[in-house]
Amino acid sequence: MALVVQKYGGSSLESAERIRAVAERIVATKKEGNDVVAVCSAMGDTTDNLLDLAAQVNPVPPQRELDMLLTAGERISNSLVAMAVESLGAEARSFTGSQAGVLTTDRHGNARIIDVTPGRISEALDKGRVCIVAGFQGVNKESRDVTTLGRGGSDTTAVALAAALNADVCEIYSDVDGVYTADPRIVPNARKIEKLSFEEMLEMAAVGSKILVLRSVEYARAFNIPLRVRSSYSNDPGTLVAGSMEDIPVEEAVLTGVATDNSEAKVTILGIPDKPGEGSIIFRAIADAEINIDMVLQNVSSVEDGRTDITFTCPRGDGPRAVEILTELQKENDWGEVLYDDQVGKVSLVGAGMKSHPGVTADFTEALRDCGVNMELISTSEIRISVLTRESSIDEAARALHDKFDLGGDEVAKVYAGTGR
Amino acid sequence: MALVVQKYGGSSLESAERIRAVAERIVATKKEGNDVVAVCSAMGDTTDNLLDLAAQVNPVPPQRELDMLLTAGERISNSLVAMAVESLGAEARSFTGSQAGVLTTDRHGNARIIDVTPGRISEALDKGRVCIVAGFQGVNKESRDVTTLGRGGSDTTAVALAAALNADVCEIYSDVDGVYTADPRIVPNARKIEKLSFEEMLEMAAVGSKILVLRSVEYARAFNIPLRVRSSYSNDPGTLVAGSMEDIPVEEAVLTGVATDNSEAKVTILGIPDKPGEGSIIFRAIADAEINIDMVLQNVSSVEDGRTDITFTCPRGDGPRAVEILTELQKENDWGEVLYDDQVGKVSLVGAGMKSHPGVTADFTEALRDCGVNMELISTSEIRISVLTRESSIDEAARALHDKFDLGGDEVAKVYAGTGR
Repeated sequence: MALVVQKYGGSSLESAERIRAVAERIVATKKEGNDVVAVCSAMGDTTDNLLDLAAQVNPVPPQRELDMLLTAGERISNSLVAMAVESLGAEARSFTGSQAGVLTTDRHGNARIIDVTPGRISEALDKGRVCIVAGFQGVNKESRDVTTLGRGGSDTTAVALAAALNADVCEIYSDVDGVYTADPRIVPNARKIEKLSFEEMLEMAAVGSKILVLRSVEYARAFNIPLRVRSSYSNDPGTLVAGSMEDIPVEEAVLTGVATDNSEAKVTILGIPDKPGEGSIIFRAIADAEINIDMVLQNVSSVEDGRTDITFTCPRGDGPRAVEILTELQKENDWGEVLYDDQVGKVSLVGAGMKSHPGVTADFTEALRDCGVNMELISTSEIRISVLTRESSIDEAARALHDKFDLGGDEVAKVYAGTGR
Repeated sequence: MALVVQKYGGSSLESAERIRAVAERIVATKKEGNDVVAVCSAMGDTTDNLLDLAAQVNPVPPQRELDMLLTAGERISNSLVAMAVESLGAEARSFTGSQAGVLTTDRHGNARIIDVTPGRISEALDKGRVCIVAGFQGVNKESRDVTTLGRGGSDTTAVALAAALNADVCEIYSDVDGVYTADPRIVPNARKIEKLSFEEMLEMAAVGSKILVLRSVEYARAFNIPLRVRSSYSNDPGTLVAGSMEDIPVEEAVLTGVATDNSEAKVTILGIPDKPGEGSIIFRAIADAEINIDMVLQNVSSVEDGRTDITFTCPRGDGPRAVEILTELQKENDWGEVLYDDQVGKVSLVGAGMKSHPGVTADFTEALRDCGVNMELISTSEIRISVLTRESSIDEAARALHDKFDLGGDEVAKVYAGTGR
């Protein structure tokens, strides 16, 4: 008998009909002889509707109360799922994040899980009950106030619970049936991947694949919890994310896929004196403003005036603030102009096979050349190559790379309704 | 500085606009120098909408999960009220029933409060914060599962919290501005009562006045917490319910008012042998079925056959079940026919003044005679006379009694929009 943790997203639960379908899957898993813990998000539009109400009573709602409000969403979906499971003849109990022992930091709206003490869940499982646990929420370990985990919170709840309960697998259900070699809406012959390592999934998530949230993959990797990405609309086994890249025999290492990202902006500071400490002024100021930096490039300095340029990318939403901060600093320091460009996009190739296949970078750059895509920045890791280019070029670049590295399947990928997660 | 507990019902909170109005009243009370705890129900239709969703996933939803579901309603309204209070410049915190220390029995859907341990509330009040507490809900002391308190639960939460916090007053806000001498929709010149004793309010609530729920008045009386019934749409001081009838000087004791009730049905068992134990068979069977009995009448037995009749009233919803049970018993026992009548109504006169004014019963019966209303059953307490009659007659009977005892005011009573509570 296995212990299976399943996570269902909001679009899988957007109506009573879909809730019943989710309940059927849960009961089927139980009847196969497994213990089941299902972590559920709020129904479809609930969160948006609640945010709308909040804005009507207070344009800047206090975060603690916003968390109280939003957690009502999972309370509703979870109790409904439990009722639906019971109507199918299995015993079920729903639990809030607090009742499930999800203890977090005090940062309302974006709390981190500190510890999971799922005593009540274990007890209910021992009694043969299906446990339905509210995702996205926890309780502040100190003040006992209700918190929410921010973006991708329900995935993180599921993985953290799976780790605390020593589950055999954590299944992440949404409206796509696995991890693809590229976004099928951009690359029609994208192929579903059967299995990939945690490192490969981390790189894919980091460079724009939206199927799994980075922090949940990091959590699963840290506790070695196999993840299975599945669709709540099919019985496809989906994609297994498990194991370390190190364990993949060299001859089996392949390229995983192509990802695109158009959520970043590019900032350039010209004419920086090429001497120690100038760069750190920039990056400390950006870090103090809690802006995440992705790609960074520093040019060799000019022979004439001993000055250099620094370019970096950051989330587009933070771009204007970054420019404002740097423009202030420019006045105090002897720097040139600050340039801003939010028409950029990033295309990346990921795969453990990169290590054992020489010439990947050459093929990569030739593929872009052949489709006339200009590279503005390049960054690499051991198993990834990313290039910054015009936003308008990234789809074409993705298709060219996907073809060049022969990642496609023989058929057109299935794309389900919905917007993903 | 006083500690004021306020309770706001669902119709006072049915929109963002009304929530802001409630917040303004809370902040005004705070600015007058009081500590404020506001107990809020779920917004307008929330509960009905949630019940509707539940029915779609499970026609007989398990009570534990139904309580989880319904308590989301107060979580939403309470966090919104807290946000609205904060937007007016006061500090506020919302608390669930569990966080407020409302400990209950395990009877989901109709739990009783066992104890209130409002440590977190006291702490927040000490810090100068307004506390917003979810009404209608608590937590099972043993299992730590979430429970609901059933009908009138939010009033009960407010009174219980007021008792635990030793509050100076508990204000019950709804869409009527006090307790009236009769339902103003039936008796247009009904007069608002300024003050009445707990006993008088208990009798009024017991015989059909819907303004306050019986159990909350019982609780307030037991802990001697003054209640003030007010409208959330006006600044009228409302009605004060406080003190014992015993403390009212004889010369000030008056008649409180008239109430009607059309929620009961009448059951009669004919031809019961007039010997010890026959009546107890009936009432034990009805009690075992958890059916509440209100009025009871046993006729003198007939001289010819030594047989008698027993008639009682019970909630109309339980009537058919009562008849079914008695019809079974009729077969085993030597009884005559079981009769059922749900076209009955009850009209009552309540008031401490009854004790010191002889002839009230005579005036009462004459008033009914004069308007042609026939009495089918009579029951009395020290401060109440109730009569069962045809349902179609009760409005007319109420007007006649109200006139006879001179209870009316000089003007037509204000009736606000809404259905009361």
